[in-house]
Amino acid sequence: MTVKQLSMPELVDTCVQLGIPGVGLWRAPVQSYGLERTAELIRGAGLTVTTLCRGGFFTAIDPAERAAALDDNRLAIDEAATLGTDTLVLVSGGLPAGSKDLHGARERIADALAELGPYAEERGVRLAIEPLHPMYAADRCVVSTLTQALDIAERFPAHQVGVTVDTYHLWWDDQAPAQIARAGAGGRIHTFQLADWTTPLPEGVLNGRGQIGDGSIDMREWKAYVEAAGYTGPIEVELFNDALWARDGREVLAETATRFVEHTT
Amino acid sequence: MTVKQLSMPELVDTCVQLGIPGVGLWRAPVQSYGLERTAELIRGAGLTVTTLCRGGFFTAIDPAERAAALDDNRLAIDEAATLGTDTLVLVSGGLPAGSKDLHGARERIADALAELGPYAEERGVRLAIEPLHPMYAADRCVVSTLTQALDIAERFPAHQVGVTVDTYHLWWDDQAPAQIARAGAGGRIHTFQLADWTTPLPEGVLNGRGQIGDGSIDMREWKAYVEAAGYTGPIEVELFNDALWARDGREVLAETATRFVEHTT
Repeated sequence: MTVKQLSMPELVDTCVQLGIPGVGLWRAPVQSYGLERTAELIRGAGLTVTTLCRGGFFTAIDPAERAAALDDNRLAIDEAATLGTDTLVLVSGGLPAGSKDLHGARERIADALAELGPYAEERGVRLAIEPLHPMYAADRCVVSTLTQALDIAERFPAHQVGVTVDTYHLWWDDQAPAQIARAGAGGRIHTFQLADWTTPLPEGVLNGRGQIGDGSIDMREWKAYVEAAGYTGPIEVELFNDALWARDGREVLAETATRFVEHTT
Repeated sequence: MTVKQLSMPELVDTCVQLGIPGVGLWRAPVQSYGLERTAELIRGAGLTVTTLCRGGFFTAIDPAERAAALDDNRLAIDEAATLGTDTLVLVSGGLPAGSKDLHGARERIADALAELGPYAEERGVRLAIEPLHPMYAADRCVVSTLTQALDIAERFPAHQVGVTVDTYHLWWDDQAPAQIARAGAGGRIHTFQLADWTTPLPEGVLNGRGQIGDGSIDMREWKAYVEAAGYTGPIEVELFNDALWARDGREVLAETATRFVEHTT
């Protein structure tokens, strides 16, 4: 999504040129290019799919909506398996219309994971609850902290349910470093994502994630936390940013690779 | 600030008409109308000033900026005393330009409070650290949770430093109810403010606080938390909202009073 202006072949080609060994994919562009075709393209280029984004949206109360969400998540798990990634990132869902019950919504997420965990395990896919910044609690994700994500994840085996650690969502939280240690000790850090925090936030607060190095987050500090917790997996850069999307995608990807090296090594 | 379109006399007049017994004031409109003149106007109408907003912005590293901030806070304390309120609300400040050090910024807030606490106490004014929503951590307030606010406040006597409990900033945090109990047990809930959470957030995320009842927050639930914690003080409604500011201020204040009764009693 960092360079969604690139076609799938352009993305793969640019990754290869830049020496980027793996790529996290979102479902819509994969479906648009074709699931099997994407899997072949990536495999043929010698790249790996680090994660698939995103499953989730588990908080509906209406039974039909809830069943549809579970069906869609089973499909997402199947897609992840076909793409050869072991991790499906979950954006768990906000409050249903008219509801003010955060606790109930969080419990419905746990209920959904109880149904999906074994299905994912059978296909070699781990579910990674992503705590989203508290500014998304109402409309996208009622799981706002790593503490909350682990409180849910730890009800399940680590090879079924873990967490996504994303600097953009967690950087403000002084409890997050200890929770990263907790997650690491339990083998539950299923992916680690970087984005920087820049202000002012845009209307709707979705597409203002800053390029690495442009904002308030010390990337080395957060990388050190996950490394100290035993994480050795890929590090993803996930930027939703209208200004970056308006530029040449290859140039943005090259810049991102440079910034990554500058700010994490 | 909820009805900043009203002049000070209009505000006082409308409060009296609506049976609103007290009002929280911001410094700029007070200074504009005149400090002594405001104090006389409010007193003459039989109203109380519940709190003065805001002191704070303690996080500068530059010594001259820091000294200026402390001077300005002493002035704010003097103004609070003149207005007859016992509470100055603090917005503690964000990261200085170029800094990524949240911990250091939080320590500078504690350093400032060590200087200002005794000065405030001598004038009968309590300082109330307001944890602001984490979306303001970079540019307005590095104190993002009630836990963090109390960790700082508890270094000082409760009659010098306490906290502001504001639903808008805390509603997403499942640890906040226990922290309200902690604050109440220590006599540190110095004011309680209501605003509702509505989406989408506007650009800059400052002026989108929802009218009571329009959003995701169960006001009765939060009122019950502070009451269970022993709070018996005033309840303020503080809305920053471009749409409300564009309307007739008397009408907005009447609506706010109605919503307050509907959603808290």
